[in-house]
Amino acid sequence: MSSSQTQTYAQRAAKHPNPSAKALLDTIERKKSNLCVSVDVTKGDEFLNVIDVVGPYVCLIKTHVDIIEDFETSLIEKLQALSAKHDFLIFEDRKFADIGNTVALQYSSGVHKIATWSHITNAHPVPGPSIVTGLASVGKPLGRGLLLLAEMSTKGSLATGTYTEEAVRMARAHSDFVIGFIAQRRMDGVGASAAQSVVDEDFLILTPGVGLDSRGDSMGQQYRTPKEVVTESGCDVIIVGRGIYGTGNGIDIQAVQTQAERYRAAGWAAYLDRIG
Amino acid sequence: MSSSQTQTYAQRAAKHPNPSAKALLDTIERKKSNLCVSVDVTKGDEFLNVIDVVGPYVCLIKTHVDIIEDFETSLIEKLQALSAKHDFLIFEDRKFADIGNTVALQYSSGVHKIATWSHITNAHPVPGPSIVTGLASVGKPLGRGLLLLAEMSTKGSLATGTYTEEAVRMARAHSDFVIGFIAQRRMDGVGASAAQSVVDEDFLILTPGVGLDSRGDSMGQQYRTPKEVVTESGCDVIIVGRGIYGTGNGIDIQAVQTQAERYRAAGWAAYLDRIG
Repeated sequence: MSSSQTQTYAQRAAKHPNPSAKALLDTIERKKSNLCVSVDVTKGDEFLNVIDVVGPYVCLIKTHVDIIEDFETSLIEKLQALSAKHDFLIFEDRKFADIGNTVALQYSSGVHKIATWSHITNAHPVPGPSIVTGLASVGKPLGRGLLLLAEMSTKGSLATGTYTEEAVRMARAHSDFVIGFIAQRRMDGVGASAAQSVVDEDFLILTPGVGLDSRGDSMGQQYRTPKEVVTESGCDVIIVGRGIYGTGNGIDIQAVQTQAERYRAAGWAAYLDRIG
Repeated sequence: MSSSQTQTYAQRAAKHPNPSAKALLDTIERKKSNLCVSVDVTKGDEFLNVIDVVGPYVCLIKTHVDIIEDFETSLIEKLQALSAKHDFLIFEDRKFADIGNTVALQYSSGVHKIATWSHITNAHPVPGPSIVTGLASVGKPLGRGLLLLAEMSTKGSLATGTYTEEAVRMARAHSDFVIGFIAQRRMDGVGASAAQSVVDEDFLILTPGVGLDSRGDSMGQQYRTPKEVVTESGCDVIIVGRGIYGTGNGIDIQAVQTQAERYRAAGWAAYLDRIG
């Protein structure tokens, strides 16, 4: 078992060089929550309402601000106020996937100005290392962290084999800014040469496609349990979306709280099992 | 040589089943231009100014509306007016790269509402076929067309080998909506089984990284000439950005016109050479 996998979140926080990774690990430990809720709604009010309800149970809120129809700058101010109120970090799930010059502009500019408020964001490694360099030119001075999509949880994903290995090599070459992966398992040592020492590397693994009830949806998403991803596969953060706040309009506050606490408890129990 | 590669744009337009592909091929023939200009600027006024100047020389304008700081709905109305005035199609280079449910929302919703105005958009095949299904659920009823990124022109791109083959298979399985590829060469027959008849398939190849002067930039972009991409590699549309409107602030109208006409002429000459 790898070294980071058997350490506590607090131990890892104490020595992580990236400010956003350190803050996330500290938050996880403080709140005893490795739960990230993905808030995929299209109305600003509902977005804020869901976050205000699940906020106490999460270490991280995952956003897709580009699906919010009535997005405006004040929405980000309200999101930041909720982040302070409930003590969570923000992860815009932008999945950058362009050349360095373009992603630098997409990250810093436009209507959404992601770099100014999102502690963590992510990118596909498919364009090659220039995507990391381009994003780092914007995010590193701000203390941000980047996750690479080393794997995907969808059927027929092409992020496998050599692709995954290349993603990890790319991260290793930029480990001051790339803090981990969107993946289904630990990546320690993946793609490393025999001569490389990887014993001290600590990449966070954030895992989508986690569910306690359903096994999949009609659009290719597949689900695994917290025990499968955290205890068995060694992942660090479980990402849950519609499993917590449902698919209907409006939210039933008590039902959402119950689900959020249920996933928080399941994720934390799976972690305690892992570190023994 | 493949059949679509030796046919004229007009011959291909006459039998293409997708409305956006047909419109693009017709526009190319009518304007004798296989030039697409990529307008990567962050101010709405400059965006419209560049498009108004290069409009007469292009078949297609490629946009990144998510880098425009002062984006508002009226900008799209002005873009559509320019599209009618100068007779070009619009291609939002969004590089969708998420699961089906998310890309459907990103395509239809949010501040940008891409599906309502962009004739053509593109996606990475990395999530697997659900990305095509998700986007098709929004774009197909509107007559839109999708390009898959089968290859990228950046150094260290992971879109090679099996990845590229899978991209083409995915396109072939959804050829009523996937109209072609962002790639550096033709994809006819790539990844097809021996039993499959691919003689009638007509995927458009749109090729970025085209330059007449520079060979690359500091952020990993690499350049090839129109002759290399159109005549030798059989691509259909050349995509040119900063090579036409420069990297400074403000635009020198006459210099931009000169460059746009230079690239239009070079792209068209390369096509005439190809069809003999």
